[in-house]
Amino acid sequence: MSSGEDDLIARFFMPLATDPGALGLVDDAAVLKGSADDLVVTTDAIVEGVHFLADDPPDTIARKALRVNLSDLAAKGAVPAGFVLTLALRDANESWLAPFARALGEDATAFVCPLLGGDTVSTPGPLTVSITAFGRVPAGRMVRRSGAQPDDIVVVTGTIGDATLGLAVLKQGSSAANVAAQQALVQRYRVPQPRVAVAAAVRDHANAAMDVSDGLAGDLAKLCKASGVSAQIELEKIPVSPQARALLGAGAATIETLIAGGDDYEVLCAVPEGRLTAFLAAAKAADVAATAIGVIRSGAVPPRFVAADGREVALTRGSYSHF
Amino acid sequence: MSSGEDDLIARFFMPLATDPGALGLVDDAAVLKGSADDLVVTTDAIVEGVHFLADDPPDTIARKALRVNLSDLAAKGAVPAGFVLTLALRDANESWLAPFARALGEDATAFVCPLLGGDTVSTPGPLTVSITAFGRVPAGRMVRRSGAQPDDIVVVTGTIGDATLGLAVLKQGSSAANVAAQQALVQRYRVPQPRVAVAAAVRDHANAAMDVSDGLAGDLAKLCKASGVSAQIELEKIPVSPQARALLGAGAATIETLIAGGDDYEVLCAVPEGRLTAFLAAAKAADVAATAIGVIRSGAVPPRFVAADGREVALTRGSYSHF
Repeated sequence: MSSGEDDLIARFFMPLATDPGALGLVDDAAVLKGSADDLVVTTDAIVEGVHFLADDPPDTIARKALRVNLSDLAAKGAVPAGFVLTLALRDANESWLAPFARALGEDATAFVCPLLGGDTVSTPGPLTVSITAFGRVPAGRMVRRSGAQPDDIVVVTGTIGDATLGLAVLKQGSSAANVAAQQALVQRYRVPQPRVAVAAAVRDHANAAMDVSDGLAGDLAKLCKASGVSAQIELEKIPVSPQARALLGAGAATIETLIAGGDDYEVLCAVPEGRLTAFLAAAKAADVAATAIGVIRSGAVPPRFVAADGREVALTRGSYSHF
Repeated sequence: MSSGEDDLIARFFMPLATDPGALGLVDDAAVLKGSADDLVVTTDAIVEGVHFLADDPPDTIARKALRVNLSDLAAKGAVPAGFVLTLALRDANESWLAPFARALGEDATAFVCPLLGGDTVSTPGPLTVSITAFGRVPAGRMVRRSGAQPDDIVVVTGTIGDATLGLAVLKQGSSAANVAAQQALVQRYRVPQPRVAVAAAVRDHANAAMDVSDGLAGDLAKLCKASGVSAQIELEKIPVSPQARALLGAGAATIETLIAGGDDYEVLCAVPEGRLTAFLAAAKAADVAATAIGVIRSGAVPPRFVAADGREVALTRGSYSHF
């Protein structure tokens, strides 16, 4: 009655299932305790060759799979409550699974988001890691994409464009950046930093929010469309890292590339002008950079991106899409 | 800013997202309203070539993907509350997606388990449908695998072994069964019947329960192991369909094959002797066949399967495993 699948789960994933709701991963289902809070549910899958590269280290794949979901929860103002994992594997390779599971456990602990359950299936195709994550918000308080109002200030956390530059390094080999800069950009692609620490500030102050996963330009357009508004963004205010700044300065990258590229996993939100100071202070207290980059406008036209000289920049490629 | 992925979701899946918690599938996350009930969470993925065949009709693939999860919820005593879907597709083929989405919507309505959200990703590999489903039970009342007690009666719903016989028809072509029987068996493989209707009876009466997905023999062994007990099963009491009965009679199948085969998606439970009449009556009222097949015994040995002549049948293959 031995089962390779059960052995695999017992060896690599049971040590992570410390939450009582996981039932030690030996049951058919997990339990999330009832509460008056709403439960926010998000699901994101990452596929080898599409969202990560075949030779990415297994620990970074684990972290990315969980973090892209934590990023969604943060943007919705939710506190992580746990996750379930579906792993589609070609084979049960211990040298891959051990560091994968260890890193997943470290992130689950660090972000207080315990593994509750999962499914492990074999596939002849690419490795696929699918996670459904849960978070809690007070009833009715999930922050939606659809609440932005004219004159709200558009704010984004962290820096934009590093991940797409990191992916370019991995795909095209060396870039104009030096080796240390290249490594920093690659790390941003492989291991995003979910902004869990600003979830409460988003919930307390933002009218609308989403995470930037498919490129700032395209994702802002989605937020505006959902809210029935437009926006004007000042390109020079968009926060970029020193590494990206150097590449922009050297003419090795353009701001259009940075705002069309995906995998930033920053929070984009619309904050009423009167709440901006409080929001920025709360973000600072949480040690998360937050930058006002423009303003929500009435109207249905796509967001405008304006350079320092007042010239509007046309975007030829809006947002990442799978099809 | 057009996006094939968004268009695909809008065309095929938004019509299914009728629950307010789905937010029309235009946000980053879904909302499940808080309540005093515990939330039961289960996740199961099905992979082309592993859990279904490449030329299975898309409507049956959709139904199977949802129903294998509904089966888990039923075995845990939970009432369906909704699900999220991750679809990994090679391409966005309308002639495949339209019947897939239509059937998924029909089942979501029929089982009152609304689509809440999801993720659609491209893959160069096999089609993979991953669903995480949610159900509600009164606080602390989820039925576990681990509660079986000596002298409990072992009960199983429906019939056992049809799906593995149906898979054999699909893989090996015609069998000893006539065409109508073959079609009935194939249908059992492709579209399981989740026993949602007995969830309340399981919760009210069973000490332990699980769904039979990897073969009755192996799954009973898991239930016994989780409960720290053994069991004795009378082979001739195991419920089989007329089609399976005919194949057994003709020597074209063995009972060992039927109880080792997977994909039954029936409920297996341990019911205290004093509750058996009430459980069977509740199942009958729900129009679900339920059959007592043996008894839980103390001890740590694997469950014994005994023929009518008292002879114990040794099983060479216990349970389906992916690795």
